[in-house]
Amino acid sequence: MIKHKILFPGDMQVEVEAGVTLKDVMNDVGINFDFPCGGRGKCGKCLIRLTAGAHEASEEELKILTEEEVNEGIRFACITRVQNNMTVEFLAEKNVQHKILLSALNRTAKVEPHITKRYLEVEKATMTNHRTDWQRIKDGLAAQGSDSEVSEARLSVIRSVPDLFRDAKHHITAAIYNNEIRGLEAGNTSEKLLGIAFDIGTTTIAGFLMDLYTGEELSVASTLNPQTQFGADVISRITHVNLDPTGLDDLHNVVTSAINDLIGEVVEKAGVTREDIYAVTIVGNTCMHHLFLGINPRDVALAPYVPVVSEQLEIDPQDVKLEINSAGKVFVLSNIAGFVGADTVGVLLATELDESEEIKLVIDIGTNGEMLLGNKDRILACSTAAGPAFEGAQISCGMRGATGAIDHITFGEELKYSVIDDVTPLGICGSALLDTIAGLVEVGLIDERGRFMKPDQVTDPVGIKLKDRLIPYNKSTAFVLVSDDESPGRQIFVTQKDIREVQLAKGAMAAGIQILMKNYGLTTDDIKQVQLAGAFGNYLNPHSACVIGLIPAELEDRITMVGNAAGAGSKLALLSSSEYQRAAGSARNVQFVELGSDKNFTSTFADSMLFPR
Amino acid sequence: MIKHKILFPGDMQVEVEAGVTLKDVMNDVGINFDFPCGGRGKCGKCLIRLTAGAHEASEEELKILTEEEVNEGIRFACITRVQNNMTVEFLAEKNVQHKILLSALNRTAKVEPHITKRYLEVEKATMTNHRTDWQRIKDGLAAQGSDSEVSEARLSVIRSVPDLFRDAKHHITAAIYNNEIRGLEAGNTSEKLLGIAFDIGTTTIAGFLMDLYTGEELSVASTLNPQTQFGADVISRITHVNLDPTGLDDLHNVVTSAINDLIGEVVEKAGVTREDIYAVTIVGNTCMHHLFLGINPRDVALAPYVPVVSEQLEIDPQDVKLEINSAGKVFVLSNIAGFVGADTVGVLLATELDESEEIKLVIDIGTNGEMLLGNKDRILACSTAAGPAFEGAQISCGMRGATGAIDHITFGEELKYSVIDDVTPLGICGSALLDTIAGLVEVGLIDERGRFMKPDQVTDPVGIKLKDRLIPYNKSTAFVLVSDDESPGRQIFVTQKDIREVQLAKGAMAAGIQILMKNYGLTTDDIKQVQLAGAFGNYLNPHSACVIGLIPAELEDRITMVGNAAGAGSKLALLSSSEYQRAAGSARNVQFVELGSDKNFTSTFADSMLFPR
Repeated sequence: MIKHKILFPGDMQVEVEAGVTLKDVMNDVGINFDFPCGGRGKCGKCLIRLTAGAHEASEEELKILTEEEVNEGIRFACITRVQNNMTVEFLAEKNVQHKILLSALNRTAKVEPHITKRYLEVEKATMTNHRTDWQRIKDGLAAQGSDSEVSEARLSVIRSVPDLFRDAKHHITAAIYNNEIRGLEAGNTSEKLLGIAFDIGTTTIAGFLMDLYTGEELSVASTLNPQTQFGADVISRITHVNLDPTGLDDLHNVVTSAINDLIGEVVEKAGVTREDIYAVTIVGNTCMHHLFLGINPRDVALAPYVPVVSEQLEIDPQDVKLEINSAGKVFVLSNIAGFVGADTVGVLLATELDESEEIKLVIDIGTNGEMLLGNKDRILACSTAAGPAFEGAQISCGMRGATGAIDHITFGEELKYSVIDDVTPLGICGSALLDTIAGLVEVGLIDERGRFMKPDQVTDPVGIKLKDRLIPYNKSTAFVLVSDDESPGRQIFVTQKDIREVQLAKGAMAAGIQILMKNYGLTTDDIKQVQLAGAFGNYLNPHSACVIGLIPAELEDRITMVGNAAGAGSKLALLSSSEYQRAAGSARNVQFVELGSDKNFTSTFADSMLFPR
Repeated sequence: MIKHKILFPGDMQVEVEAGVTLKDVMNDVGINFDFPCGGRGKCGKCLIRLTAGAHEASEEELKILTEEEVNEGIRFACITRVQNNMTVEFLAEKNVQHKILLSALNRTAKVEPHITKRYLEVEKATMTNHRTDWQRIKDGLAAQGSDSEVSEARLSVIRSVPDLFRDAKHHITAAIYNNEIRGLEAGNTSEKLLGIAFDIGTTTIAGFLMDLYTGEELSVASTLNPQTQFGADVISRITHVNLDPTGLDDLHNVVTSAINDLIGEVVEKAGVTREDIYAVTIVGNTCMHHLFLGINPRDVALAPYVPVVSEQLEIDPQDVKLEINSAGKVFVLSNIAGFVGADTVGVLLATELDESEEIKLVIDIGTNGEMLLGNKDRILACSTAAGPAFEGAQISCGMRGATGAIDHITFGEELKYSVIDDVTPLGICGSALLDTIAGLVEVGLIDERGRFMKPDQVTDPVGIKLKDRLIPYNKSTAFVLVSDDESPGRQIFVTQKDIREVQLAKGAMAAGIQILMKNYGLTTDDIKQVQLAGAFGNYLNPHSACVIGLIPAELEDRITMVGNAAGAGSKLALLSSSEYQRAAGSARNVQFVELGSDKNFTSTFADSMLFPR
């Protein structure tokens, strides 16, 4: 039998058979070491450094360790098999950085799940060791060197002990949250630890199934927020709550049941089960937040627009009827104000505005538009009713950004456009609407105030080529994008009224930016980066946004798109308890600017409705 | 308008109208002072000392303050009305001692309820003060100078805020437990704060409704434990759990529903409602404890007799379906071992054995017999199956100590007996059974081994007078207490088999005492006091107990009866959170002696079945 020598710190030398794992060796010689995932090579927490005798890194190790770490001899103790003599060093700080790829954001964060799992072989009671079952579980956990004493549990968990001990012969896995044993399971289930990050939008709900050990995204699903049946915007939903005695229950029930359906969908896609889900994070605007929690959002719609609660909440899945493992927890991010909700806190977290040296402007445009301006020293926030115009609602030929929607338009000798999924165009979505209006401004077909020019007033050479597309419409004018000839019965155009809708929406947002800058004491020169987030923010053409004055033109070359940053923030908060904690503190430090009570708002808004020359 | 001068500490002098309360004056000038009961003169916590200008003490004050305190000028700030110039001193330590009278125990304890109530007028939100509703509640509590920061709440409590603010115009009362807001109520409900202490016996459940401000007992009710339908003793109930798939639910449900009925009964008697109940304490043996909690007690009946859980538990009433205020908490005292349960911890608390300088022997005799021996330095405990004999079960003419039971008997020229409620005797209860056997021993009608003497062997003069009462019975002998002549068809007698039952029960208990003394290294000389507790312990004649050798004869003049000490402990734990905390620590320090595994038990038990000469 081949034997090898292993040298541990403190000159401890042991001789062991080839092929055993370092985990077993360490257990045998009584080295107290932490194997959170039970030694499956999943969590990457049992790091050691082999200063001599390092083997080639395994697939599991390569998934988690950086090249540098591998070269340094860092390995997982649990799956390292003794093949030769080795010198082992313990690492003072275990600091695995799982890179979390978040759409356009390139964020790294240490994966530190809120809930951890520990496999435990509980001692059996004897006549001389008659500690209670519960005490022996706690002592077993303490002996594994948990960071903090685990002592709490709900009665239901204690009730599960006798049958579990009988059925699993005292071999159990504990799901732990802070100092609480949230659940006990038969056998070693420590490799199962998944979570879902949710972003509850007014229009769309998205759920991301994540592996809480690796940070990997396993599947995604989204659905229309079924609350839309009670109104497209938050105000009409709040009205339903106010007028109908069952209104609050209606809205709460449809959103939680939609979330349960999404949970079913993401777990099915990934080939796992609801029982594998131990953590859920929630972001959403303040009204979505309240309705998800079953809290009446009545006052959010009334001056002074005060939420019932904004603090981060950690609730039991049962409290909101979520069908996941009963040991799980639901983490609800905080709100900033009545109209700057937990979704904006997600954006803050994802964009790291709270750690930025540079001044950044972050704009999340969905059904509403929320803005953050500042850096790590100070952040101001405001919210404007972006209005449904950007989502294609209340626009003559408007539609959501779905199959058949014209999504981008270029003005030139000819009008060029692209259609989602390359089919016959059915309508126009928000980004193309912006392109159209920007084009109309650039070729002089509308004036500063947004009015269509008379054909004989057009002077721009491109404008002259396109002016035949101006047609009379409803005692006013419209601009034809797709003519009846091109698509019989499916004429697509933009009307004077459509332009007004966009002016209102962009005017409000531009005024918000102006007032934030003024309150901060900044000019556009000070803003080093503009990050556009959100369903709409991610699709618009930055040039168009600048042409119509939604964003100051000087900032055009500093604009980047960051995708669904609210959802990305939800994922970060799910994967990392430190990020979640940080979000709470950062949210508290954001100063909310109530635009309605700013004395300059009305005049700034009026000015901002104009198109820059 | 008459004005008076009030001098506060720090030379603060104010001039106020006659008739206003000091509470209002202090609020007006911004003195931060605590009025836990909202200024109703109920709780006696807002004490001040009037070094000049003290008025005559009011009825409320006299109820709570000692004469000495009244003479010192101590008063309640909340109900003191300004009638003249006054000099006010604040008291460094508010330390009202409500005397809690506990049946035969004369215990005093500071009333410190687990749950407190605070009346609060929550600030309204404005455009410049847009803290959330929840934050303003927390800030309001903090401004009242709560001892610790109150920050936690269940989602259901947060959900109640919007309607409460609307309906109660922001005037609310918070029920607080540690750092948690357990409930919010409209208006000032701070004067309502009641609790119920329960003692769940194997045979009887008793509930005591207590005022959590004054410590007063408002009403009492008791009922037969409905679990008796599944077996008279704990072992047969555990058998039901083991054999019937719904056994655990059956036993859990009948006991919680009996407790709900008792709650209904005590609140009705006192003219209050279930909603006034904010705290419940529970004591009971380990099996009763587990069944109340819905925990399978299977292993309590199997060697090594280990409970699932013994630690003190604070649970929500919903977890055990108790119908009290949903803001309430249920406090379950700890167990010591499988057969020394939370009821014995109640006894420990009530008798203050854990603070006694002297060595005491405390015996709680109910369906089982638990014993504690020791003092503040060291306490040993054991349990014996007292058996149902003492409760009149399995005894030929036995019955419970109810109407018609002979409860005491004196042997002399004639046999004298007393009957509960002075009716025609129906049977004999445990205390009279002991008297009978003690009498038979004393007059020489039974020998050392418990056998009836032949009539011609009787030599004692009194014995000779009574020997005609010996009759043949079932091939053996019986001793007639009430003859067919006295009570036709209702002859009452004690058989040879009855004597054997008592010998087994008393033998087990006497052996327990011997083994505890031996383990401790004590003799009877060291034991300065014997306290008898429990349903049976309280009714037996100490002389009879010593004559038959249940208790060593040397201790006879050191015996006192302390009534239902387990129930008294439950009341103490209910009224005082410090007593409750103390109980947990003291219980942990008790050393359990497992009689079955003591190598001397069998021989000591055999010796102890004999009657002393």
